[in-house]
Amino acid sequence: NGRSVKLASNDGSFEFKPGGRVQVDYAHYDADKQQLGDGTAIRRARLSAEGKVFRVWDYKVEYEFSSSNASDSAARGIRDAYLRYTGFAPLTITVGNFKEPFSFEQVSSDSALTFLERSLIDVFAPSRHIGAAVQTSGANWSLAGGVFGERPEDDAAAEGDEGYDVTARGTWAPFWDTGRVLHLGAAVRRLDPDDSTNELRWRARPESNITDVRLVDTGVLTGTDHVDSYGLEAAGEWGPWSVQSEYIGTKVNRKSTSDVDLNGWYVLTSWFITGESRPYKASEGVFDRVTPLGIVGQGGIGAWELALRLSNLDLNDGPLVGGEQRNLTVGLNWHLTPNVKLQANYIKVLDLDRPGNAADGDEPSAYTVRAQVDF
Amino acid sequence: NGRSVKLASNDGSFEFKPGGRVQVDYAHYDADKQQLGDGTAIRRARLSAEGKVFRVWDYKVEYEFSSSNASDSAARGIRDAYLRYTGFAPLTITVGNFKEPFSFEQVSSDSALTFLERSLIDVFAPSRHIGAAVQTSGANWSLAGGVFGERPEDDAAAEGDEGYDVTARGTWAPFWDTGRVLHLGAAVRRLDPDDSTNELRWRARPESNITDVRLVDTGVLTGTDHVDSYGLEAAGEWGPWSVQSEYIGTKVNRKSTSDVDLNGWYVLTSWFITGESRPYKASEGVFDRVTPLGIVGQGGIGAWELALRLSNLDLNDGPLVGGEQRNLTVGLNWHLTPNVKLQANYIKVLDLDRPGNAADGDEPSAYTVRAQVDF
Amino acid sequence: NGRSVKLASNDGSFEFKPGGRVQVDYAHYDADKQQLGDGTAIRRARLSAEGKVFRVWDYKVEYEFSSSNASDSAARGIRDAYLRYTGFAPLTITVGNFKEPFSFEQVSSDSALTFLERSLIDVFAPSRHIGAAVQTSGANWSLAGGVFGERPEDDAAAEGDEGYDVTARGTWAPFWDTGRVLHLGAAVRRLDPDDSTNELRWRARPESNITDVRLVDTGVLTGTDHVDSYGLEAAGEWGPWSVQSEYIGTKVNRKSTSDVDLNGWYVLTSWFITGESRPYKASEGVFDRVTPLGIVGQGGIGAWELALRLSNLDLNDGPLVGGEQRNLTVGLNWHLTPNVKLQANYIKVLDLDRPGNAADGDEPSAYTVRAQVDF
Repeated sequence: NGRSVKLASNDGSFEFKPGGRVQVDYAHYDADKQQLGDGTAIRRARLSAEGKVFRVWDYKVEYEFSSSNASDSAARGIRDAYLRYTGFAPLTITVGNFKEPFSFEQVSSDSALTFLERSLIDVFAPSRHIGAAVQTSGANWSLAGGVFGERPEDDAAAEGDEGYDVTARGTWAPFWDTGRVLHLGAAVRRLDPDDSTNELRWRARPESNITDVRLVDTGVLTGTDHVDSYGLEAAGEWGPWSVQSEYIGTKVNRKSTSDVDLNGWYVLTSWFITGESRPYKASEGVFDRVTPLGIVGQGGIGAWELALRLSNLDLNDGPLVGGEQRNLTVGLNWHLTPNVKLQANYIKVLDLDRPGNAADGDEPSAYTVRAQVDF
Repeated sequence: NGRSVKLASNDGSFEFKPGGRVQVDYAHYDADKQQLGDGTAIRRARLSAEGKVFRVWDYKVEYEFSSSNASDSAARGIRDAYLRYTGFAPLTITVGNFKEPFSFEQVSSDSALTFLERSLIDVFAPSRHIGAAVQTSGANWSLAGGVFGERPEDDAAAEGDEGYDVTARGTWAPFWDTGRVLHLGAAVRRLDPDDSTNELRWRARPESNITDVRLVDTGVLTGTDHVDSYGLEAAGEWGPWSVQSEYIGTKVNRKSTSDVDLNGWYVLTSWFITGESRPYKASEGVFDRVTPLGIVGQGGIGAWELALRLSNLDLNDGPLVGGEQRNLTVGLNWHLTPNVKLQANYIKVLDLDRPGNAADGDEPSAYTVRAQVDF
Repeated sequence: NGRSVKLASNDGSFEFKPGGRVQVDYAHYDADKQQLGDGTAIRRARLSAEGKVFRVWDYKVEYEFSSSNASDSAARGIRDAYLRYTGFAPLTITVGNFKEPFSFEQVSSDSALTFLERSLIDVFAPSRHIGAAVQTSGANWSLAGGVFGERPEDDAAAEGDEGYDVTARGTWAPFWDTGRVLHLGAAVRRLDPDDSTNELRWRARPESNITDVRLVDTGVLTGTDHVDSYGLEAAGEWGPWSVQSEYIGTKVNRKSTSDVDLNGWYVLTSWFITGESRPYKASEGVFDRVTPLGIVGQGGIGAWELALRLSNLDLNDGPLVGGEQRNLTVGLNWHLTPNVKLQANYIKVLDLDRPGNAADGDEPSAYTVRAQVDF
């Protein structure tokens, strides 16, 4: 497909595909109350190998080499690492480390995102954990569910039993044609934390990953019994214009103190000046990467995309004052080829409500750019 | 061979082969005296590149991405990384990081093991270190010897001279035909520890790698002058039925305190319900991976294997009370294809003799499962 | 080219090339005043993927797996990770993590070096950082310049703005023919350190990387405002005989204390007993790897090279006594194939002038060997 290398046996029973991606970022911050720290980062640098053996066995190993943020212990680590049985297609069974079926934005590949970073509500999305899942799909719907443990890099010092997640997500596209999509989705998650700590924490960077500052942060919540989350998704596409929105609510059930309700949402809209549409994959219920009508290097000018996002994260509930943050992001994407992209985002913290904390009312803005290639 | 990708030049002077493996584990423990910590892990996630240049030069680079256990500093690290000259074949010369010729079980590839983990006596096997070795073999024998330094991830803070190993192993198969093998082997090892520390330690998990608990542990032995080990191996195969056994004795020569004698052994037996045999490689004196008679995905049901192992590790000697542990393991393997395998092990600590220590008499059991693919 | 694997589409618009390298080292030290610590190391173990998409877009991802020295926080980390636009060839634009254009020796690939390690003055060369650069070249000249931030593994705990580098290098070959080259070059660098620390440090191992001992070390210099460096290069080649020399001067501008001037130089000469010449790449202004006239494995004896280097690093200036070190290195290289090399170096510290420090007058010598393969 002009994008990547694939080696296959003559009968198609065996395939091998090496791949990778590089994302180079720079951010400049207009700080308000505290320094955020301008700078550069290799946001992602991955190599992967995936393939198929004996027709019905898929595998993938992917590693993230980037470790730009000292506070992310698993920044450098295993990403996809799984074995999948496709003998009951369209039903598939997957075992290993891979993304849990929860959150429209999270299950979309980072290389297909409209903005540099996922929105504030990504704090509620579990992303990849070690587990087992079943997926199936029809012409315009998808369904997936699984049970998951910890991340490959996690290991509690104390030897209590590991925590686990149970997640499920379903999507449905009442209309679906090229450049004309209505997408609806819902997901649920039950999280039972690690026995030895029972500790959980939610915190978020201001939709820019160069800084290590989190304006909102619940701190460590001890004595959590379990956490229930649910997500609602809706998206629509009319030719070059699309909208996408998502809401996630999270209820933390605590053993001796009162329960806590957290939530967040975002709405984004995108418009292709050059007329492209975001391709929809109904089998997974996600948008995929954009292929420009004219490719730079083959006489074209690439795809130009304007985008706007409003996002809100509320980590305040009763005595817990993690903070409520509302951001506006303006984005300009230049898709030079299907796999080369330049992006610029302006992110403005519209409101930060965290009474009693030094970050209360801290409303900085960020200018961020990215160059990306995946192969 | 239906397993992996290999690119070769027309005259065969040049080859390149990318590869990798993923092992996904789950363990549930019936704890006795102390918590062991149920959970999941990516046990191994490796990518490798190997090849041949100018006919007589082989190379390999292999990296382990998994780092599930906080207490293993070298869990994530370089595995095979070597250059080999094959111009004097069958004699070969290897320089780099690779497995020392010591212990039948250790020199066998982990993807060809009968159980999820090697037995308790693997604590005495040096595995991979940086060094140089010479190997040669005949129709039914093999001989290898080398000198080795530290692991690629090791680096003593103090700048004493690095420790070194001298190891040698010979194997002989008096009978050898497909499905009919008698294997005998012996190996010796002299270890001279790092000058700056002179410290050594032997400890073992209960043949399950999810937990970080070691029931037997000598603690750090200071003032070691050198260590001598020897190993004896025997194995036999009659069609679908095989037995394999190994003994390793280790004598720690200490400078001012009395010497310490440690030892261990295991006996295992395996039976293929579906009639396969474990393939023997006389040139290395090891068993290789099993190819099922009927492959799942090509109409077959795979190979089904039942196995049993008894192992014993004795780290008690005079005043040193590291503990003596005896384990029984029952295993069921389902080889779906030559490179996809599901495994289940039940491990029971039969006896734990460590007088005066909290772990004395701690006799837990473990239920462990694994999904594995290598390519 | 008999060296590496390259997959290309029929029209040449797409390419993919996996690669890697392994270097295995051993060093024995004749210590003088302090222990240096004999030992082994995997000096480099890298895997990489590079390629071309849509004719004008080049990319590369390269990772270093080796982490043999505890004191190098970025030893294991991302190396090349970039996206390059070649649509204005010979002018190219590169974004990502790659080598800054500064220092003849540093911009040369480590697999093409005459000795095991770069000379003492490499302490002044920035090597790879995240940034953007423009390069262009003619038949016998090259010009490159760029702006760079931190290393991919760096992340200051405090959130001041990241430091940055501006570097430029030009080279010119007044004569240039196969085996007959006169090379001249010059480079400049302005370094503005990280806002949160303003700290810089220069220190060097004795041109051998097994030890962690640095005989010369400025310690941490606080309150640096900016640093200006410049480099001058000259090299000549007459058939099998070549000379190469470089000088780098560095001026540290400090905020409240007096400025500091540091500098270093080396001169090396190499002679191929077997008659080869070092190949020159005018488009980058560097020497490349040697191809032996007769390849071992194809009936040849490889290329045999004798080399000598004198190097000097002066970290003394006024009240700052980082030390001045002068080394002599004798080298013997055996290039068995274009990508397999054995090397032996004898390094003698001729003079160590660091009044008042324990290292003053410490003049050890080192015997070092390496086996190397790249593919």
